[in-house]
Amino acid sequence: MHTIQFTIEIVATFAFALSGLIAGIRKKMDVVGLCIVSGVSAFGGGTLRDILLDRRPFFWVSHSLWLWILIITCLLAMIFMRERHISITEKAIQIPDALGLGLFAALGTQIPLELGMPAIVAALMGMMTAVFGGVLRDICCNEIPKAFNDHQPYAVLAFLGSWLLIGLTELNLPQWLVLFLSASITTALRGLTIQFKWQLPSLKITRNH
Amino acid sequence: MHTIQFTIEIVATFAFALSGLIAGIRKKMDVVGLCIVSGVSAFGGGTLRDILLDRRPFFWVSHSLWLWILIITCLLAMIFMRERHISITEKAIQIPDALGLGLFAALGTQIPLELGMPAIVAALMGMMTAVFGGVLRDICCNEIPKAFNDHQPYAVLAFLGSWLLIGLTELNLPQWLVLFLSASITTALRGLTIQFKWQLPSLKITRNH
Amino acid sequence: MHTIQFTIEIVATFAFALSGLIAGIRKKMDVVGLCIVSGVSAFGGGTLRDILLDRRPFFWVSHSLWLWILIITCLLAMIFMRERHISITEKAIQIPDALGLGLFAALGTQIPLELGMPAIVAALMGMMTAVFGGVLRDICCNEIPKAFNDHQPYAVLAFLGSWLLIGLTELNLPQWLVLFLSASITTALRGLTIQFKWQLPSLKITRNH
Repeated sequence: MHTIQFTIEIVATFAFALSGLIAGIRKKMDVVGLCIVSGVSAFGGGTLRDILLDRRPFFWVSHSLWLWILIITCLLAMIFMRERHISITEKAIQIPDALGLGLFAALGTQIPLELGMPAIVAALMGMMTAVFGGVLRDICCNEIPKAFNDHQPYAVLAFLGSWLLIGLTELNLPQWLVLFLSASITTALRGLTIQFKWQLPSLKITRNH
Repeated sequence: MHTIQFTIEIVATFAFALSGLIAGIRKKMDVVGLCIVSGVSAFGGGTLRDILLDRRPFFWVSHSLWLWILIITCLLAMIFMRERHISITEKAIQIPDALGLGLFAALGTQIPLELGMPAIVAALMGMMTAVFGGVLRDICCNEIPKAFNDHQPYAVLAFLGSWLLIGLTELNLPQWLVLFLSASITTALRGLTIQFKWQLPSLKITRNH
Repeated sequence: MHTIQFTIEIVATFAFALSGLIAGIRKKMDVVGLCIVSGVSAFGGGTLRDILLDRRPFFWVSHSLWLWILIITCLLAMIFMRERHISITEKAIQIPDALGLGLFAALGTQIPLELGMPAIVAALMGMMTAVFGGVLRDICCNEIPKAFNDHQPYAVLAFLGSWLLIGLTELNLPQWLVLFLSASITTALRGLTIQFKWQLPSLKITRNH
C-alpha cells in the first residue's frame, strides 16, 4: 500500500516541479529562482499537509535523494534552454499542473482519512495539498494565485476529486483503484475545463441581467 | 470554562468568515473563491496560533461541522446576492472585522497563558491570532494587508486588548468577565478608531514640520 | 556549545531586525508597522526552521526578553527618526541583511545536522532559515522578495555557506570555528556581490546572442 502512495507522491511532486520550472522559465528567472520555484511548487502542498497533520518526517526529508534530482533537473533545463530559443506557452504549465492537481488531491485526502479524520476535513486537506504548491508557485512568480482568481474550476475540482476518493473508499474498492480513479477523473475534468473554457458561476454575471 | 472559550471561538470565527465573505463579494469572486476567502479569514488566525503552540487538533478538525456551516453560508450568500443588486460599502467589512479582532485577541492570549507562556509571548500570540485571518483575507483579495498598511490603530489594539486580558487575569476576576471585558474594549476601540479616523503617529508627519 | 549557537542566534536576529527596521522606515511605516516588519524579519527565519524541524519552544518564546528589546529599539528608532531628517539609502538595508544571511545559514544548517538529517536537507534548512526572514520583510513592505527576484546571488550564497559548514563539520574542526568561517565567508561573498554587482547566469542573456 505505502508503495502506491510513495509512487503517487513522486509523480505528483514531479508534475508540480515541472509546472514550476516552466513558470520560472517563462518569467526569465535565474537558475536559483528556477530551483526555488520548482521546489516550492513540488513540495509546498505536501509540506503544508504534513504540518497541518503534524506528520514527520516530510517527504523531502525522508527521501532527500529527490532534492538532488530536482536540482539537477533544473540545472539541465537551464543549460538546455540557453542553447535553444523555445517559446513556452501558458498551456505548457497547465498540463503538469492538472496532473499534479489530481494526484495530490487524491493522496492528500487518503492520508488524513487513514488517520481517522472526518470526511470534510480529509477533503479540505486534499484540496489544500493539491492547490498550495501552485499558490506558492504563483506567489514566487509575482502573479495572483490561479487558484483564487481563475474564474474556471480549479480548487473546486480538487475538492470534488477528494470527495470522489472518500466515496470510493466507502465502497471498499482496492486502494490503488480508488487512488487511480479519483486522480485521473480530477485531472481529466481540469483538462476539459481548459479545453472548453468552462466557467464557474460568478457574481460578475449578474451585471448582464 | 472550556464552554466559554468554545463559544468565543465560534463567534470570532463567524465574524471573520463574514468579513471574508463581504470582502470576496466586493471583489466579485466566484463561489469557490468566496468559500476560500471566508475559510482562511475564519480559521487562519486560530490555525496559526495552534501551529505555533503545537496544539492539535485544530478547531476546524475537532468541530468539523462548522466547515459545513461555512460552506452552506457561502452558497446561500452567493444565491442571495445574485438575486439582488446590493452594493456593499467598505464599512460593511469593518464591523465583523472589529468584532473578530477583539474576540480572537482575548482568546489567543488566554490559551498560551494557560499553557504557562510568558506574558509578552501570550500577548504576541493574541495579536497574531487576531490579525492573521484578516492578513490572509487581504492577500487572497490581492490587497496590501490592512494590518500592515492602515495608518489607523489595528494590530496595536489587538496587542493592547491582549495586555488588558493579562492584567485582568492577574486580578483574579472570573474568566468569562476577563474575556468579555478584554474583547469588548478592543472591539469598541476599533469602532471608535474607524468613527473618528484616529491615526497612529507616523514618520509621514515629519514631512509637514 | 549551546552558548555559541545562542550568541549567533542573537546577533543574526538583531541584524535582520535592523534590516527590517530600515526597510520599514524607508516605506514610512507607522510605529506598529515598524515593530511588525522588524519582528518578522528577525524571527521569521528561525521560526520557519523550528516549525519544519518540529522544534519547540521557539527562540522568542524561551528568550522572550528579546521581544521587549526589539519593541523598545523600534520605539527609540521611531523617536530618533522623527527628530532628524535622515535619508536612508537602499544600501543601508544590505549590510545587516548580509550579516544575518551568513549567520542564519550557518546556524540553520548546524541544528538539523545535529538532529541527524541528511546533508542536503540540512543545507536547504540553512538556506530557508537565512532567506525567509527577508522574504517576509519584503512581503510586508509590498515588494517582490529580493531572494526570488534579485538577479544577483543571494539565496545561492546561503546555500553555499550551508555546504561549507557541512564540509567543515566533516573535517572535525571545533564548532565555533566552523560556524565563524561559514558565516563570515557567506557574509563576505554577499558583500562582494553587492560591491561588484555580480550577476547570476540567467535566461535573459540568451536574448543578446
